[in-house]
Amino acid sequence: MTIKDVAARCGVSVSTVSRVLNRHPDVSASVRARVLAAVEECNYVPNNSARSLVSSRSTAIGVVVRGVGNPFLASIIPVLEKEIDRRGYTMVLHQITSRDNELQKAAILQREKKLLGIIFLGGNSDYTEQDVRQISVPFVCCTYTNSFGTLPPERYSSVSIQDGEEAQRAVELLWERGHRAIAALIPDADNPSIGQLRWKGYQRALSRRGLEADPQLVSFTEGYGMDDAYQGVCRLLDRGGPFTALFCISDSMAMAAIKALSDRGRQVPRDCSVIAIDGLEQSLYAIPTLTTMVQPAEEMGRESVAMLAELIEGTGEHRHLVMKAALREGESVRAI
Amino acid sequence: MTIKDVAARCGVSVSTVSRVLNRHPDVSASVRARVLAAVEECNYVPNNSARSLVSSRSTAIGVVVRGVGNPFLASIIPVLEKEIDRRGYTMVLHQITSRDNELQKAAILQREKKLLGIIFLGGNSDYTEQDVRQISVPFVCCTYTNSFGTLPPERYSSVSIQDGEEAQRAVELLWERGHRAIAALIPDADNPSIGQLRWKGYQRALSRRGLEADPQLVSFTEGYGMDDAYQGVCRLLDRGGPFTALFCISDSMAMAAIKALSDRGRQVPRDCSVIAIDGLEQSLYAIPTLTTMVQPAEEMGRESVAMLAELIEGTGEHRHLVMKAALREGESVRAI
Repeated sequence: MTIKDVAARCGVSVSTVSRVLNRHPDVSASVRARVLAAVEECNYVPNNSARSLVSSRSTAIGVVVRGVGNPFLASIIPVLEKEIDRRGYTMVLHQITSRDNELQKAAILQREKKLLGIIFLGGNSDYTEQDVRQISVPFVCCTYTNSFGTLPPERYSSVSIQDGEEAQRAVELLWERGHRAIAALIPDADNPSIGQLRWKGYQRALSRRGLEADPQLVSFTEGYGMDDAYQGVCRLLDRGGPFTALFCISDSMAMAAIKALSDRGRQVPRDCSVIAIDGLEQSLYAIPTLTTMVQPAEEMGRESVAMLAELIEGTGEHRHLVMKAALREGESVRAI
Repeated sequence: MTIKDVAARCGVSVSTVSRVLNRHPDVSASVRARVLAAVEECNYVPNNSARSLVSSRSTAIGVVVRGVGNPFLASIIPVLEKEIDRRGYTMVLHQITSRDNELQKAAILQREKKLLGIIFLGGNSDYTEQDVRQISVPFVCCTYTNSFGTLPPERYSSVSIQDGEEAQRAVELLWERGHRAIAALIPDADNPSIGQLRWKGYQRALSRRGLEADPQLVSFTEGYGMDDAYQGVCRLLDRGGPFTALFCISDSMAMAAIKALSDRGRQVPRDCSVIAIDGLEQSLYAIPTLTTMVQPAEEMGRESVAMLAELIEGTGEHRHLVMKAALREGESVRAI
């Protein structure tokens, strides 16, 4: 299979195929798509040495994942990779813990790997102009936005759900099913992240109904891990304040919470209803199946790459895409 | 922070720091470690443009993950990344489905991304000399080895458990607990992969006790997914052959199997014991906690990178590392 075969297959000239492969801007989107499809079908591998003569530009897009082992973020990585690859770029993945500073890590990565742009998959939400000064390439926040920060919206892009509103909807569902003593499992109250936004949504759902969050019913956890959630529920139960429902800020925390409840003799949903946000595949197989607000993970990943590619290629501006979560009713919530 | 500060901090010359950063071979291991530690502590970022004058060599190591969404493989990716990064290389991740051919994808990746070496994270086990001809850089099979193939051992490296033996141990545990009608959930019987090896281990455990695998009690699934497992158990139950235990080749399949059993009114372990292989974190929080043979995932990842780095740097030969799995007793197996 040669470049001539690819050209013949899509009825364009060899130089057009070459322009597409070397990502020259002067090719129409439809021709580009046709050529790339043919390249894929034919399994055509451009000759490397010839190609590197033409172009030694970097193709690297950094993906900084904050929260190693977060299964929701992990489920988006393959989507990002596929989409980055499809557009002729190379994904450089960097996974950090929830305690690391993603901007610092990204600044190092940007210089070391000659990144063209960065996708932050999970991160804090309190960026300032000062914080991002070290980053000179465009970046997209995937799954969150800069809700607590002062960074002007025209300085970055984001794809997220409305975390506060979706949390509020989840807690309201519990309310509609008759629950009044609704406990909550919230990671690090001081951390300006989606955990905080969801925590605010929980509070808003209650305050709209004339209630305040009962400190006895809120368990602050050290982190987002399953072990954190398990221990958080044990502390909640030790306090003894009665509750009939539990709001968790993520599916994986909810699954660990259900386990803790079960280990302490409380069956879900008979003795306690549980609701969460994320929509992992595995929560479909939890016992009981988890009721959760499903984030459109695949679409969020695809859109993040599309937005970043436009920024890199100079065909788009920074923008902020807000998506809807969808309630997936499982068996973990019952009416009382 | 400049290169001079780093040099002063570890008491070496500027040119030594530079040699370390550009990965020249003529630096002792201890000096290299000291310099890299200082670089990390100081958060020193080498000047990119100057550095690229010195070295435009690729630093890319390809990681080809076969089985997008396989949570066991996903848990190894952060380990690989950290270790690849720590050694001054760059991870280029490529995730493919279980139906894709990892060697073909790797050959394309190798040329397009100028890879120095490849780690296959999951893959088939029937490579021939002919198959790997297109790959000219060293590669390591992580979590499997070439059990069914004819590729000479000196042509590649691997880090794996003894899948057959560990499966056999798992089934023998069920046997010791009094189970005789032991069902099995096996993905694509024709696919020469770890699924096949574990299936052989299941058969061996039975044949050593004078039994043959009862076709009624073996459910072949389309793939390794949770949905495949769920449907596989439903078909098993529809056949009506009685069984008191179920062997699953992976934790995630086991969790979906337990769900299917539960949905059909069979409680684990009261009505059916379940055992698996892998040792995911989340199976600690399954209800009931899964009994499983835990693979040393972190060590497997670390060793794979170490072996590949040695091959790239010319300080090691191809070798094959076999590790032990460790039984983690949960609540999903009971004695009858």
